[in-house]
Amino acid sequence: MSAYTPPDVWTWSPDGAGRFSNINRPVAGPTHDAELPVGRHPLQLYSLATPNGVKVAIMLEELLDAGHDDAEYDAWPIDILSGEQFSTGFVAINPNSKIPALVDRRTDPPIRVFESGAILLYLAERFGDFLPAEPPARTETLSWLFWQVGAAPYVGGGFGHFYAYAPEKLQYPIDRYAMETKRQLDVLDRHLAEHRYLAGDVYTIADMATWPWYGGLVKGVLYDAGRFLSVHEYTHVIRWADEIAARPAVQRGRRVNRTWGDPAGRMPERHGREDFERR
Amino acid sequence: MSAYTPPDVWTWSPDGAGRFSNINRPVAGPTHDAELPVGRHPLQLYSLATPNGVKVAIMLEELLDAGHDDAEYDAWPIDILSGEQFSTGFVAINPNSKIPALVDRRTDPPIRVFESGAILLYLAERFGDFLPAEPPARTETLSWLFWQVGAAPYVGGGFGHFYAYAPEKLQYPIDRYAMETKRQLDVLDRHLAEHRYLAGDVYTIADMATWPWYGGLVKGVLYDAGRFLSVHEYTHVIRWADEIAARPAVQRGRRVNRTWGDPAGRMPERHGREDFERR
Repeated sequence: MSAYTPPDVWTWSPDGAGRFSNINRPVAGPTHDAELPVGRHPLQLYSLATPNGVKVAIMLEELLDAGHDDAEYDAWPIDILSGEQFSTGFVAINPNSKIPALVDRRTDPPIRVFESGAILLYLAERFGDFLPAEPPARTETLSWLFWQVGAAPYVGGGFGHFYAYAPEKLQYPIDRYAMETKRQLDVLDRHLAEHRYLAGDVYTIADMATWPWYGGLVKGVLYDAGRFLSVHEYTHVIRWADEIAARPAVQRGRRVNRTWGDPAGRMPERHGREDFERR
Repeated sequence: MSAYTPPDVWTWSPDGAGRFSNINRPVAGPTHDAELPVGRHPLQLYSLATPNGVKVAIMLEELLDAGHDDAEYDAWPIDILSGEQFSTGFVAINPNSKIPALVDRRTDPPIRVFESGAILLYLAERFGDFLPAEPPARTETLSWLFWQVGAAPYVGGGFGHFYAYAPEKLQYPIDRYAMETKRQLDVLDRHLAEHRYLAGDVYTIADMATWPWYGGLVKGVLYDAGRFLSVHEYTHVIRWADEIAARPAVQRGRRVNRTWGDPAGRMPERHGREDFERR
């Protein structure tokens, strides 16, 4: 259809970059000075209730339900549409300017952790839970955790972008990423046909990482693409997603740092268990 | 330009999927029965000298240079263009059908590890090297390791695909992924301006994971895109990439499971240190 020829040297044209064009740039680093808020708990989460963001809130709520009272945390929303991820305060804890990011103030100086997969692993090691200690269960957990981190960019940055967000529908990228998204769903479906959870019999950080993306897909929540992707085919993923969705910690965690949608489901900030009792 | 409207339900059209169309499918699982070969060492690597593949061979060669004699391994090439990753043998060790995959036969039954990031972490924990034991260095290593795993799909599956491999040059996807690739290079450049290695003063699995992709970009090796992406701008990444490229283990590891290019640089299989002495 087109006869586009790339130039010798790429240059940035901020126009035409589609939805989210104001927060996508070819450079890194801060755009403005601002400090991050700090609450009373050692753990400070800076996030938003996106699929990557809720992974960490779910883990923290699971830790609390498992009796780790010192997993109490403050969760602060980062308004990525207004560029809060480019503040000096946020870039200092995540030079990649993406949510979620965590600061552990138990030590002096505090420890920064970025990337949702790294945060899940950090918390699993810090509290000694939701990550089996020995192979093969530990190895399976980590293989699937890394699988999710490397696979979901094809779902979110690929399929979701071209199907739902790009300024124009382009058939080739939509076909490319729909095919890959369905392949990934089939990888999960075949595995979950034979295993209750990703690492086997135990619920781990691999499930917490995978559920927000692939559970969202099979329940038709992400990108309104359930019919397009024929997600009813993935019956084992649906069984697994429903089981996880029923967990009280998951129901709480998915609300944390939610700044949109049904007002009763919003919770821009979270500072204690009592926040879930209020409206 | 186009007036494409996605159908209600996506269906697969194997035609027009571009280069690699024969190995991209919307379903998972094996296509044929075949066993994997097994050599004499406990560690069996099934891989190919792609950026993700060489990560693991570099780690194993680094472990050997660091004195871990029990890191000796057999490395077998998986011909992904002919679909060997879809054999029953390969799918049994990686249900995602991607290289690299590792089997550790020290235990009975053997342990499978898939995803390059998970394999690096498994080997770092098994041999106690190239991953600091304590925060903050351990935390930084893992944050950057997960960063690489989540970021590179925008480079390889995004930029590289649309710039170099797609059947037609499409401006919007090329612009999208060129911008993101440059942003990621700038993230690294700013960090490496102030740190010798990704985790600080020590060379870790985060560097081994990141070097094949971003070192390849700044040296103009990947996708012949050095000029297009103005990679000369990233002087700190170039400094870091050159330093890593000079390591003997890296020079060996990048040859392992290389089945193309200069015949003197090929090494389809690797079974011992002596293989590097031969032509």
